[in-house]
Amino acid sequence: MPDITDDATRWDDIAARLRPGADGLVAAVAQQWDTGEVLMLAWMDAEALRRTLQTGRATYWSRSRQEYWVKGDTSGHVQQVREVRLDCDGDAILLRVDQTGPACHTGTRSCFDADVLLGAEDAA
Amino acid sequence: MPDITDDATRWDDIAARLRPGADGLVAAVAQQWDTGEVLMLAWMDAEALRRTLQTGRATYWSRSRQEYWVKGDTSGHVQQVREVRLDCDGDAILLRVDQTGPACHTGTRSCFDADVLLGAEDAA
Repeated sequence: MPDITDDATRWDDIAARLRPGADGLVAAVAQQWDTGEVLMLAWMDAEALRRTLQTGRATYWSRSRQEYWVKGDTSGHVQQVREVRLDCDGDAILLRVDQTGPACHTGTRSCFDADVLLGAEDAA
Repeated sequence: MPDITDDATRWDDIAARLRPGADGLVAAVAQQWDTGEVLMLAWMDAEALRRTLQTGRATYWSRSRQEYWVKGDTSGHVQQVREVRLDCDGDAILLRVDQTGPACHTGTRSCFDADVLLGAEDAA
């Protein structure tokens, strides 16, 4: 994978487009690239994004532990990154990934599997 | 659509599961229900979520304008909500919606269409 973070000018330009919230973070949505399933939402600062682009492994900032974490480093449930997109106002990133095993630390495929507040059958 | 916000106990229980960030907000991902396309990311507090569940129309909190907005009220590009899910740690909501027209204020279908930081062809 070509590493755009090697190009300092291009990287500075990307980092300058980020519009983090009060906590200095942007939201990162991980989506399984082939099925379209939304797997999880985590948080990134510019450094987490740089590491993700550089390594091709999804790397986030943990708000609870206040540290970087590479998805799957402890669990083995890695996210190989195929595509990274920034949204129109710079406060969200979409990662299209190939997820090994469950994305959620609870063991479900997606972090959105367990808690349905409104179901499609209700809306019908 | 049955309105779970009419049930005060159930609503209080949902609101108590939200784990907002420093700005008091959770991230809300809107996904087209049938194609799986991730359309946009916006922000919600408990009141925006309550209004969304109550009306079936995606309602967000605008960080820039500091006000609630109902998606499509000015543009006509409404999001009819079919499913609402809360993630495992309460800081993100997944809305499965039926999006009328472009989701992005720039006129593209998705807010993630324009700015590709890493493409699938790079990762191959």
